[in-house]
This record gives sequence, structure tokens and C-alpha cells, in this order.
Amino acid sequence: MNEIDYLYKSKLNEECGVFGVVNVSNASEVMYYGLHALQHRGQESAGIISTDHKQFYTVKGTGLVNEVFSETNLQTLNGNTAIGHVRYSTQGGSSIDNVQPFLFRHYTGDFGLCHNGNLVNSGELKRQLEISGSIFKSTSDTEIFAHLIKKDTQTNRLEALKQALNKIEGSFAFLALSKRKLYIMRDKNSLRPLSIATLNGGYVISSETCAFESVGATFLRDIKPGEILIIDEAGNQQSDFYAKKTYNNMCAMEYIYFSRPDSDIEGMNVHASRKEAGRILAKEFPVKGDMVLFVPDSSTSAALGYAEQANIPIEMGLIKNKYVGRTFIKPSQELREKGVKMKLSAVPSLVKAKDIILIDDSIVRGTTSKKIIEMLRHAGAKKIHMRIAAPPITHPCFYGVDTSTYDELISGTHTVEEVRQAINADTLKFLSTEGILKATRRDKLCLSCFTGNYPTYTYQDITKANTDDKF
Amino acid sequence: MNEIDYLYKSKLNEECGVFGVVNVSNASEVMYYGLHALQHRGQESAGIISTDHKQFYTVKGTGLVNEVFSETNLQTLNGNTAIGHVRYSTQGGSSIDNVQPFLFRHYTGDFGLCHNGNLVNSGELKRQLEISGSIFKSTSDTEIFAHLIKKDTQTNRLEALKQALNKIEGSFAFLALSKRKLYIMRDKNSLRPLSIATLNGGYVISSETCAFESVGATFLRDIKPGEILIIDEAGNQQSDFYAKKTYNNMCAMEYIYFSRPDSDIEGMNVHASRKEAGRILAKEFPVKGDMVLFVPDSSTSAALGYAEQANIPIEMGLIKNKYVGRTFIKPSQELREKGVKMKLSAVPSLVKAKDIILIDDSIVRGTTSKKIIEMLRHAGAKKIHMRIAAPPITHPCFYGVDTSTYDELISGTHTVEEVRQAINADTLKFLSTEGILKATRRDKLCLSCFTGNYPTYTYQDITKANTDDKF
Amino acid sequence: MNEIDYLYKSKLNEECGVFGVVNVSNASEVMYYGLHALQHRGQESAGIISTDHKQFYTVKGTGLVNEVFSETNLQTLNGNTAIGHVRYSTQGGSSIDNVQPFLFRHYTGDFGLCHNGNLVNSGELKRQLEISGSIFKSTSDTEIFAHLIKKDTQTNRLEALKQALNKIEGSFAFLALSKRKLYIMRDKNSLRPLSIATLNGGYVISSETCAFESVGATFLRDIKPGEILIIDEAGNQQSDFYAKKTYNNMCAMEYIYFSRPDSDIEGMNVHASRKEAGRILAKEFPVKGDMVLFVPDSSTSAALGYAEQANIPIEMGLIKNKYVGRTFIKPSQELREKGVKMKLSAVPSLVKAKDIILIDDSIVRGTTSKKIIEMLRHAGAKKIHMRIAAPPITHPCFYGVDTSTYDELISGTHTVEEVRQAINADTLKFLSTEGILKATRRDKLCLSCFTGNYPTYTYQDITKANTDDKF
Amino acid sequence: MNEIDYLYKSKLNEECGVFGVVNVSNASEVMYYGLHALQHRGQESAGIISTDHKQFYTVKGTGLVNEVFSETNLQTLNGNTAIGHVRYSTQGGSSIDNVQPFLFRHYTGDFGLCHNGNLVNSGELKRQLEISGSIFKSTSDTEIFAHLIKKDTQTNRLEALKQALNKIEGSFAFLALSKRKLYIMRDKNSLRPLSIATLNGGYVISSETCAFESVGATFLRDIKPGEILIIDEAGNQQSDFYAKKTYNNMCAMEYIYFSRPDSDIEGMNVHASRKEAGRILAKEFPVKGDMVLFVPDSSTSAALGYAEQANIPIEMGLIKNKYVGRTFIKPSQELREKGVKMKLSAVPSLVKAKDIILIDDSIVRGTTSKKIIEMLRHAGAKKIHMRIAAPPITHPCFYGVDTSTYDELISGTHTVEEVRQAINADTLKFLSTEGILKATRRDKLCLSCFTGNYPTYTYQDITKANTDDKF
Repeated sequence: MNEIDYLYKSKLNEECGVFGVVNVSNASEVMYYGLHALQHRGQESAGIISTDHKQFYTVKGTGLVNEVFSETNLQTLNGNTAIGHVRYSTQGGSSIDNVQPFLFRHYTGDFGLCHNGNLVNSGELKRQLEISGSIFKSTSDTEIFAHLIKKDTQTNRLEALKQALNKIEGSFAFLALSKRKLYIMRDKNSLRPLSIATLNGGYVISSETCAFESVGATFLRDIKPGEILIIDEAGNQQSDFYAKKTYNNMCAMEYIYFSRPDSDIEGMNVHASRKEAGRILAKEFPVKGDMVLFVPDSSTSAALGYAEQANIPIEMGLIKNKYVGRTFIKPSQELREKGVKMKLSAVPSLVKAKDIILIDDSIVRGTTSKKIIEMLRHAGAKKIHMRIAAPPITHPCFYGVDTSTYDELISGTHTVEEVRQAINADTLKFLSTEGILKATRRDKLCLSCFTGNYPTYTYQDITKANTDDKF
Repeated sequence: MNEIDYLYKSKLNEECGVFGVVNVSNASEVMYYGLHALQHRGQESAGIISTDHKQFYTVKGTGLVNEVFSETNLQTLNGNTAIGHVRYSTQGGSSIDNVQPFLFRHYTGDFGLCHNGNLVNSGELKRQLEISGSIFKSTSDTEIFAHLIKKDTQTNRLEALKQALNKIEGSFAFLALSKRKLYIMRDKNSLRPLSIATLNGGYVISSETCAFESVGATFLRDIKPGEILIIDEAGNQQSDFYAKKTYNNMCAMEYIYFSRPDSDIEGMNVHASRKEAGRILAKEFPVKGDMVLFVPDSSTSAALGYAEQANIPIEMGLIKNKYVGRTFIKPSQELREKGVKMKLSAVPSLVKAKDIILIDDSIVRGTTSKKIIEMLRHAGAKKIHMRIAAPPITHPCFYGVDTSTYDELISGTHTVEEVRQAINADTLKFLSTEGILKATRRDKLCLSCFTGNYPTYTYQDITKANTDDKF
Repeated sequence: MNEIDYLYKSKLNEECGVFGVVNVSNASEVMYYGLHALQHRGQESAGIISTDHKQFYTVKGTGLVNEVFSETNLQTLNGNTAIGHVRYSTQGGSSIDNVQPFLFRHYTGDFGLCHNGNLVNSGELKRQLEISGSIFKSTSDTEIFAHLIKKDTQTNRLEALKQALNKIEGSFAFLALSKRKLYIMRDKNSLRPLSIATLNGGYVISSETCAFESVGATFLRDIKPGEILIIDEAGNQQSDFYAKKTYNNMCAMEYIYFSRPDSDIEGMNVHASRKEAGRILAKEFPVKGDMVLFVPDSSTSAALGYAEQANIPIEMGLIKNKYVGRTFIKPSQELREKGVKMKLSAVPSLVKAKDIILIDDSIVRGTTSKKIIEMLRHAGAKKIHMRIAAPPITHPCFYGVDTSTYDELISGTHTVEEVRQAINADTLKFLSTEGILKATRRDKLCLSCFTGNYPTYTYQDITKANTDDKF
Repeated sequence: MNEIDYLYKSKLNEECGVFGVVNVSNASEVMYYGLHALQHRGQESAGIISTDHKQFYTVKGTGLVNEVFSETNLQTLNGNTAIGHVRYSTQGGSSIDNVQPFLFRHYTGDFGLCHNGNLVNSGELKRQLEISGSIFKSTSDTEIFAHLIKKDTQTNRLEALKQALNKIEGSFAFLALSKRKLYIMRDKNSLRPLSIATLNGGYVISSETCAFESVGATFLRDIKPGEILIIDEAGNQQSDFYAKKTYNNMCAMEYIYFSRPDSDIEGMNVHASRKEAGRILAKEFPVKGDMVLFVPDSSTSAALGYAEQANIPIEMGLIKNKYVGRTFIKPSQELREKGVKMKLSAVPSLVKAKDIILIDDSIVRGTTSKKIIEMLRHAGAKKIHMRIAAPPITHPCFYGVDTSTYDELISGTHTVEEVRQAINADTLKFLSTEGILKATRRDKLCLSCFTGNYPTYTYQDITKANTDDKF
């Protein structure tokens, strides 16, 4: 997002993207373009660990891929195998201790590790590990998994991995890098996407398939639910599973919001699913209007589908200024009241005296929708019919999406009619959950943020010891 | 564009945007958002000169508006009146001597000056001025106009201005700032847009109306061809004309390519004109296809018009990575051959085995179109029918667009059929010049880059004196 | 040193400085000036952890104190208690995982930790910890100590600390920060300096006393060998010792090279000890000469002492360019051969045809001395008598000084006469070890780099497990 | 100085340094090291114009030499001939229009120009030029000289130059660069230093000789008062004079304060002159004391001379923190009152209960001296005898030193006894003007800031036209 996005700060945030390269010359350069294609999944920090099978090389830092890596430091990343990570920003303070991939050091073999997802039992696990002597340097779930792996140094490596994976619960796509092998692991619920492609005799692994096109790789397959795929320095593969029962619970929001439109998730193109959601939305909730508007860039596909189905022209009545960067100066209160806009503006000559069908992909807090509708009304729009190409988000996510609490989710505590009033739309309709399944052509998805039916158990509070007079 | 845009470097470049503020408190802050809204017209440098009617204050620098200005330096720009400028990058060497606005110092009164456009008789004028003792510190036409103004210090200021304006030929929108007044001047051919709006009892002036919406101002009118509009520190206006005969020769490329879609140029919305061009293109050159594709972001509007008219679905088969920034590392030759993409990629799951109608806004050198078509074919597209929502560019521009030479314009030296072969499209069609006039609902436009009929005379070569043993 | 110091890269490097603040308002601002005064002890990275007794706040980063901290991020460091660290650069790769202080998380209480010094038994300890389940994220000894502390969570905190301290061997000044208390620990050999001062009812702790003057604090006392001093949030002190036998083995190089001249180490001013060393050197090795020269800035004090004792004028025949910064461009080989200098230059009008007594503080590899003498000869010096205000460095240091190996120490493998020939001096003399003791007015110092008599046992090689097919 | 120097902001500021290279391969690289050696003469901006005898190449920018130039941009500066400039910071606003060298464009031949010094009749000249049609883009005197040169394009170039030089009054060292020749011009009063050296068959020209040592060049001679030296692309020299009567009025402050100690000015080494001034000061104003202190780095040489003459030990009782950089955070008022120091600190263990002889090179406003004495007293000094190695500065400078007004010069409006009280010294003495002449071994110097006897006439106020309703 690379933007101090005051309009959109109420939106959802994905927490990471991972990319791996095995047995490909110029691995670090390929990695750079791979991470760059995954930049939308995390803008706070980026990192790469590579290996030439003799030692590890690391470059990590806060900022965009463009900012963290330079031609000079990429050249220090020797070897034909590497793992990389982009990370979403968390609140508060310095976070350089959380920049992934981590390099863990242990006499039985150092290893790199990075993670997309979220564990729901990290609290209990951390407590158990601490009691048996572990201490932690980051606030990341990833470090917990690393400790679990090394707890058992006696048994066979693959067995130790399986045991560790069976202890963790939640969503994950892990890439672990030893000096000789890349280990690829996906949770048994398959909540987060992870795919593999071939490139020049080697392999690349990515959170999203869009990165394959960027590096010129050819899509091979998705990593399976519960799979452990191990590829060695020569490109030999070994596949195994840590769980017998596995599930197809792909996160619906990956289709709706997070993934890039050019990615295919488990065989379905993201743009196509969004456009289809727009078509279904038009069928479920038709309305008369002079034009369909989209909110750039997130709801373009859905709006195209709605407009085609409804046979109503689609217009660019809302425009985004693409130069809103990180150092952008926010308008003073005085200027904001005068109507200064930074990122999004409405086009009076298009919307004046018109009945608008406004398509968006989701409503989280409602503040963005309220602002956009206000902007359109100020520009002269007559009626505003809001149509959301997803169901109301009523429950928090425990699998890596930053929805935090019920209180922040306007649909968690308000009816659709109350939300309509709050955002000041003339009408407001949400796509049904059946609509989402149909649009993605799937039997199953994780729809827990719409339904509250979580595929795993959820957080349990660990009472924190009174630590005031100790350390 | 804020991008090392290797795919698009063959595209046309506008040279500037100007913005003025008169009699508005927080003038420099308003200016910041105004220039930010004009950022697409120039990304090399930016500058502001303000006045509190006692002295001038200047902040200028190379880089984007975001980079040149900070909260700290904006606060040094005192006063309620200011002029500002964004400038397009020129080739080679350091250019800090060319960053506008310029502050000229003269005992009869210092003044600030900035300019959007290009003079065709700058060569002769510069020679004459030098012979009578002037020397120049920049390579800019703007400095020539400043010398012309100060040549005659005897007559009344307005008369001196008129005489100077009558000496220059070409396209221009000038903003000049004395300690007490803002002078707004537009060429008699009205080649470049310039409009005025009201804001809190004062005025803002802008190259494009999109900036009015950004700062919360209300559009008042366009500056007229040949008009000199003077507004003093109290907001009093005085309008005059430097030429008796004036013309409506608005640059067609402002509609087709340069201006932001949310701007209205002389009453016509830019997006609407582009969409209409797409509709007319569909009527002029219908073709069967499975989907319409646009090249993000420039041809979205035209593609929407084409798709609606043709009743063919529009898809996102080409995706732009929005994180391609200034420091982006270009792929090595080896990786480029492997197929690494940086900015644009095609989506195989959408385009595979499909007949594509590909809409773009223009073809300059043809290299971009060639690359895009190659990308689509590699992703599996069956047929590619290219449709351009403008006529072939056959002649260079002398009015501020960086088309340089005939040789670089593929349509200047090749027939449509030859171009089609060069870019490897199955069919290729261009909108007619009548189509452009109809789409913009105008009788007249400057269509010289399509027709060679220039509204003014053009450059005359000035033989450079042999200066080798002198200075 | 803030310099790409090609002349001096053969010099010794200290590894860290620590600073603590307890019960002082504006703790983070005081910390900033404290760390700034210790900047000469480490320029690679800097960090602060503060606490308001409810939670911890961290700012860390690579670069100078000036670069890591800003007014904005200092304001996020709440509380009246804090620990801070400056760190010397290590070779190779990214090092953000090594930036101190570290924040360790454990259910029995999180804590911050930073360290100046080096442990000699880190290899064994790390292996033992790993076998019992620990994994490590940095290459730092500090992390080992943190694990040792948390190994025993049953016994009383102070007892646990004592046990941990008794397990480690080497040099250290540790600052540990719990939410309520600051723990200050110094090794039983007192190899590294650490002192405490009062400030506005609270306390500040520093590796060097120079920082007390910078923050306006009043020196109280040195932390004693083997002492554990605990100060709580209200400023109450508790002192204890982890070892019964303690020693006064202050590192001689702290006086000779590392510490700032305005610091007092265990009661003796550093400049005064250096000047006295110069005086004793003049008595031990008198020589006729026209002038005494010093190498800026390191040997100024010693040269003043020599010159006063010998009654020979001291001149600025060697000049340092103080603008040699981090981004300085190194001269090409061609220019270097032409004689381009960056940092140091000799002054021909002063040294021409003169007999020079050149004073320096140490010779490590000999390359710097060789260059300086070459420079002086090229500027016309007749004779060059080199006098070193310390004994020959013949043995590597295991206590935090980056002398690495015997091979790099020219005096480790060459006689004084061989060194003289290598650096091309006319005569060369080193101060005696008695001279150093006399100059510092001490009975004992750690002189191990001159004598090979180490106050502790030294490194033992831990055979690294074959980790190639594991991780 | 590269420092937000709150202690020293009352000090004098030199305004520039110039460097030229003719007929030397790698001219831009040599230039880089030359300008770097002159960095102390100007830290606000730096620039280079080079020529390959076909065209000019320019790199200019604000910041230090290290910051403005990179390996990449130096490589764009083709050719074996170049001029360069470092400039001191002026107050207020953006100054990129003032960054030198300037490139002036004129049909009779473009040329580069840079300048060290200040013209006293710039006001009259500018008015005359403006009346005859010139306008100005910078506030620099340099632009005036450029206009004067081009006023007469008929006569022979050398004659035109002589005429222009005869019109200007003041101090100057000019370097002008045509495509084929370098023109070196020094004012007839020889107020600013300028010297030439040989390097690999070509020449380098520098404001100070210290830069010759840095680039490995061999000093040839000083440029003579009133001399015009022209060197062409092949290295051929032609010397002429623009004035028949010339004078040796070298600025005394070049010896006392501005120049680097390793420079020789007209045959006399700067350090040697300062040390001699210290010796004479000790003879003129002997006093009993326990130690001599110097203020780093400016009065080291003078203090060495005083100490040797008086046979009193010299100590480092004042220490400068060399890491005070541009982004240094100034202490809050609260912390300043608590005694936080940034740049300079006194050493209690050295100065406590001691009688101090404090040597400095000058007193401008007196605020620095007051602060230093306060610091020493706070550190326990008993008596403080201040000795200044220059006469009291009683008159402003018109030749390029930023002393501004009488009001700011404490000695301009106060007796020595009043100054002593103001700075709270026990005694205060200044070197005599005879002492300065003796120390520099010269018959004549420009001593106008001490005596008010200016070698030229001084500024005349030009009544500014009422320009309020004009521009």
C-alpha cells in the first residue's frame, strides 16, 4: 500500500507473503522480483536469507522491497537457494526484532525460517517452552515454531518436523531453509495459499501465483493441505504429510480482498472470482441507476461484473491520486474542513444529479464508505445505492488478518439497516455467503469472519504471571 | 510517473503543470495539495514562490512534490499568494538551474515566473536578447519571457506585458507573481489548459481542474485565449487581452493522454471524452473477440467505452505492479530473457486461448505495444486485435510534448499495416480525427501531431556562432 | 569513528559502550546525550529500551546515535528508566539481529539486556544450552547470558543472577532492565570500566565517565569488580557480589587507546595518563630532533608529554581532514599512485629537511605507520624517529578488542628491529610495561596483549557438529 | 563545519573556496579531492562544471562534497578541465539558485564561473545593468561579473575581461571556464588567497595550498595581485594584469581563523603563523598559571606557541565531541539547564582548583567565550586568564566574511575590560596588530576588521525603487 492511507486505514490488513527459490542461478535476483510481486501482502519490512550450501547470507530491513534491497546488497546473497518474506506493519515502537526471515542458530544445524499466517495456540506453546527454558526475542509466532523444531534433536529431522507441526494450530505457510534443503509446509486447513512453479530446472515457491508470472516461472501445483515438501540443493523433491485429516478451508478474503487480481488461488483467478461476485450481486440485489462506480483500485473487478450483468454504464467517478506516498503531509484540520482531499476525489461533472450504484469489496469500520458517500453527495450525486461484493464482516479473524476486535467491525454490532444509516447510503446490500462460494466456484471456504464458524479452536487466554518484581 | 518505466519510456511526456493561489490563508499548504494533484504533469522537480506582499519566499528542489516539500519548509513560505510548478524530467546532467518557478531580480521590482508550454521562436528571441546584452542561466524558454518583460521598463507594466506576449509564439500558460499581484496569461491559441476557481474568498488557478476538487475549490471559468488576468492581494480582478485574434486550438493529447480523467477541459470531462472515443472506435472498427483488455492505467476509460458499445466483457488480463518505484532494480539481461517482468504482466488463466481486443490510447514508437502483445501471446492469447483510441501520431509536437523527431514516431514513417506487422497484432485500427473531435464534442482541436497542420509557425534554426575560442 | 578509514583500518576496535538511566525524568533524552558521548566506542548501531514500569519501549537501528534516534522516536520511549548501547561494526552481511539492547520475553518477566565485553567460554555454554533446548537468533554472547538467567526460574532472582554470572568467564559490563529495576553487573576481573553518577535524584551508569559531564551528572563511584548493583524505580540501591575473589585487571588499552581523553578510569584521567606515558617515553628513549609530531587525534596527549619532557617544539606536521565521512569516495588506484590523500596529509613547509620525532599510541599491523612515514618522507622530512607510547602488541585480546589473530599483529611475529625496517623509520622505540603502569599510577592492569598473561582461561574450540544434512 | 553548532554560531564564516583543474586526466576525480580539502571554507553547497572542449557538464547540489558527488555523477563530468566551488550557507529559504559554479549561456560562447570573495560595488553595478536590460536570477555578486563580461561582445575577449575587472571593486578569486580555456583572476588587493600547482603535466588552482597536497600536486606559485592567468586546453599559459597598481592586502583572518593549518599563504605556513602568534602573545601578556588550555580545534596551534614560550604545560581540559552532526537533536531547555552539553565539555579531574590560561583565536560576539569559561568554572577551575591570539574585532568585514554588523561584534561596542566582565574571565588580553604582522612575517595585511582602515571604498546604499505596484 506504500501510503499513509488515512482514508483506508480502517481496511483489513494481510500479514505476510513468502517466496522461496531452490536450485536456480541468480537466486537472490529472482527472489527480488518475487518479493516485489508480493509487496501488496506486506510493506513494513522485507528480508532474504540465501545459502550456497556452505553458509547463510542475510539481508533484512524495514521498508519496501525497493528500499531494503540494492544491487550491492543483493550481490552479497550468494547461492542458488533462498527464502524471502514481506511483512505487514504492526503498531508501536521499533520492530526490527520482528523482521523475517529469522536465522536460528543451533549446534545441530542453523536454519532460516519465515511464515505467513497466525497460530491460535501460540500462548500455551510459548508458556510451555518458557517453562522448559526457552526465551524469546521477537513477538512472532515464527520463533515459537523454531523452538518446537529444536526441542527434539534426537529423532529424525522429518519426524521432528511432523511432531512440531502437530503441536501448532492455526494458519501457516512456512518456508524453512537448511544449508542443503528447502522445507515447505502448509497448514492442514489450507487457510493461506502456497504454490510451486518450475524455473530453469529449479523451483520457486510463492504465497501467490502472480509472482510466478513476474519471474517467468511456470505454475506446477498448489502445496497440499498438511503437506511437507522438501527440495534439496539438486532439486530433488520429497513430499510427506504431517496430518492425516486435511481440509479445504481457503480464506475467503484472499479472493475478496488480499490477493492480486492476476493470482489464481487453487485454480480460480482472483479477478474472475471478483467479477463473478459482482455479477451475482447484480442478480441478488438489482437496482436502477445511471452509472456504476468502483472504488479504485479494490473494487474494479466486482464493479465490472455488476455493470455488465445490469447493463448499466460504468464510469470513473472516483479517482485516486497515485502519488500519495509515505512522506505525504496530511492536511491540517482547517484544510480538511475546507475540503482538501489527498487520495480519493469525486468527479462533479460525472456524478452530478446522477443515481449512483457504488460497488465496494467490503465494509470494515464503515468510516471509509461514509467518507466516499459524503464526497459523492458533495459532488452532486442524487441517489447512492451501495452494493458490497462480500457478506457483512461480523466476526474477527484469528488466522492472520488484522481485524482485531468485534467493536471495530461495524457489522459485528449493527444490522445492515443501521450500517446503511451510519454511512448515509440510500440503499445498502451485501452479497450472500452462497454468492461468494458460487463466485469462487468452490464447495468450501473459511467464511468464519462472516459466520463465526472457525475451522480450528481459537485463542485461549494465558494468565500472565505477575512479573513486576522479577525479570 | 515516479517510475523508471522501462516499458513506457517510449510514451509521450507533458512538460509541466502550474498552480496559483491568491488571497487565501494557508496559501502554501493549499499549494502543496494543488501541485500534488498535478504531479502527473511533471515528476522531475517542483517549486513554490510565495509572497506576504513584503518579500518573496522560495522552496524548490528536484523530486516529487512529496520529496521536495516538508511540513518544515512549507511553513517558511509566508503569505496568502503563491505560484507553483511541477516539471517533467529532461535528459542529461544536473538540472537544478531549470527548476521553476524562477525568481527574477530587477530594481524595478522582483518577480516570480513559471510556465507550462513551449515557445517556437525562442531561438531568435534569445539571440536578439543576447546581442543587446542579456545572458542566460537556464535552458528554459521561461527565462526568455522574463527578459522580454524587463526590456521595457519605461511604459506601463500592463503595456510592457502585452508587448512581450506579442513577441512570443507558441503554447503557454504563464503565472507571474509580483509582491502585490498575480498575473495569469494564456496563449492566443489556447493550446494548454488553464482555469480559475474560487476558494474561501480568494482564487486558485490550475493547469487542470482536478486540482480544484483536491483543494476544495469551486470551478469558476477557463482562462480565455490571449487573456491577461491580474488579481491583486485583495482579490480584485482585472482582465485584458494581448491579442485581438484568438483561437480554440486545445491540444488533443490533453484529452487523449496527459490530463487526469477527473479533469474537465473547456467543459468536457476527460474520462467521458476517452470513454466516448472508445465507443466511437467500436463503431468505426468493430471486431469479434472474447474480451476487451485495457493497458493499466492509461486506456481504462477508452476500453470501457469500447466494451459497452460492443457488448463484449472487459477483463483485467494485464496487471500493473504499483510498487515499481524510482529505485527499482532493473532485471539483468539474463533475467529479462528468462521472462522477468517488473511493471506489467499478463494473466494466463484469463487470456489463454482467447481472442483479445486490446485497447490503448496511442502508439508512439511501437515498442510498448510490441512488448504487451508478446506478453499476451506468451500467456496463451489466440488473436490480438489492437484498437487505438486516437489517430496515428505522424508529426512531432512543438508545443511542449516531448515527441522529439519524426524518426522516433513509428507512424511518421510507416503505414498502419507496417505498424501492425511491427507490433505483431492480428489487426490494428486507429480512431479517425473526426472521431476525436466527436468524442470531445468540439469543432476544433490542435490535431497537428496527427495532421502536420500546426496552428503557429514552427522552429527556425539559428546558426550557432563559432564560439570555440571565445566565451 | 564515523569514517571509512582506509588509513586506520588496521587499528584496534573496541566493541561497545553501555549507558543506563534510573529514576530520572526525560530518561530517553538524557540517554541520547549519554550514548552520544560514548559514540567513539561503537558506530555500527545504537539502541535504547526504556520502561515506565508498565511496559517496555524500544528504538534500535544501524548507524550513528544521530541517525538512529530522532525527536519523534525518542518521544516514544516513555518512562524514567532506560538502558542503551552503542555497538562496533562487525564484518559481513546484515547485522540487524545483533543490535542491542535485546528485549527477551519470558513468562516470568520480560527484560532488556545489553553488554560491553566478551565471554571466553561462550562456545561451551552455547552448546550446553542448545543441548537442553535453547536456540539462538544472534551471534552475540549477550543472548547466552540471557538464557543462563532464565534457565533457573525457581530460585530467587538475585540467586539466579549470581549463578548465571558464575558460569560466564571473560570481560563484561552488563545492564539488565526489568520493569521495576535496573541491574548493573561487572566482571570480577574488572576488565571493562563502568561507573555510576547521580543526576537530579536519580542515577546514570556509563562505560565511561565522559558521558557524565555531557549529561550534567555528578560522578559517584566506579562499579566494583564482581559487583551486582540493583536500583529500583524509586532509586533505592542494593549492592551484592557474585564472586568472593575479585581482581583489578583493568584493560590497559582503555587508557592507551579506546577511552576518551576526558574520561577518568578508576580515578585516573585518560589524557593525563597518556601525557605521562609520553613523558616517561621521553625519559626511556630520548632522541635529538627538530620537532615532535603527533598523529591526529589519537596521539596528541602522548606527544604533548614527550615534547614537554624533551623540551622540543611540537608541530602540526600531520593534518586530518575532518570531513571524511561514510559516503566518501575512495580514490582510484591511478589517483592513489599519483599521491591523492583523503584523510591525513603531511605539511611540507613544516617538515622539510627536519628531524622528526613521531609519536603514536600503538602499532597494530604496521601499515598505518608505514604510510605516515612515507608521507612525511615525501614531504621532505630528513630523519624520522618513531616513539610509541605503549609496549608492542604481541598477543591477541579475548576480552572485546578486535585484534583477531597473531598473524595480523606485526609485533606478534617480528622483532622491534624488523618492525622498524618494515615501517621504514630511522629509529623505533616502545614504552615499557613498567612505563604504562607508572603512567596510569596503578599496580595492576590487564597487559595480556603485551605479555600473553591472560587473567582468565581463554577460548576452547568447540568442534562443530556436522550439520550439513540437518537443520 | 557540518554541525548544528550552537556553541559556535557566533563565529566568523568564510564564504567560499574555488578549485580548478586544467589538462589533467580524471579531472573530475581530482576535483573531488580538491574540493574535499577545501570543505572547511564552505559546507552549504558544492558544484563542478567540466568540459571536454565540446560541451559542458555540470553537477551541483546542496550539502557537503561527500553528499553532492557520487561515483556515478562524477563519471558524467567528462573532460580534462574543470572548475569547482564550495559555498558557505547563508540565512533563510531555499538557495539552490545560488549554488556555484554558474553556467552562463550566450550566443558568443557559454562559460562557467565561480567566485571566492565579495564585491563592494555590486549595488551600483547591478542597478546600471538592470537599467540597460539585465535581470538576475541569483543574489550572488558572481552573476554581476558575468553580465559585465558579456556587455561588450565586440572587443577582444581579454580586453573585455580587463574592462569588466576594472569595473568591480572588492575581494575576489574568479575561475572562468570556456570550452577551451581556464581564466584565473585575482583582485588587485590580493585579499583572498589563490595559488597554482603542477600535476601530471597539467595544472590545478586552489584557494588554499592544502588541497595541492591532497591531490598530489606540486606547488608552483601564488597568483599575483591583479593577475589574469589564462591556460588553454593544451596547458599553454598566458599571464596579464588588469590593473597597474596592485597591493599586498592579504586578509589577516585567513591566517588567524579561516585557512587550514597545513596551508601556506603567500609563503607562510598557517599553523606556524598561529604558533608564532601564541609565542608573541605570551611575550606581550605573560601570566602565571598551572596549565594552558586550547579550544579544540581552532586554537591548538596558538596554545602550543603560548605554552612553549611560557614553559607552562598544555592540557586537554576542553574536549570536543566529534560526532555532533547535522541531524543532532538540540537539548531541551530543561536539559540545557541541567547542564547537558553536546559539543564541548570541560574535564573536572584536570582543571579542578587550577589556574587556567585559556587561549582562543578570536572573540566575535563573546557568547562562546562566556559559555566556555562558565563550563570551566563549573568544572572547578580557580582562575581563568583568557588570551586571544588576534586583536579585538571592532569593524565589520566587506570582503566575504560574515561579520554582518557592528552591533554583533562585542569589541566594536565594548572596551577590553567590558568584554572581560561580559565573559567573566579573570584577565583578558588580545594580541597587538604588530604581533599579527610579526607572527605572519609580513609588512602588510588587511587588518581592517581590527582597525577600520579598509583597502577599498565600502558599500554605498542604493535607494531601492518603490516596486510595490510593479514587477
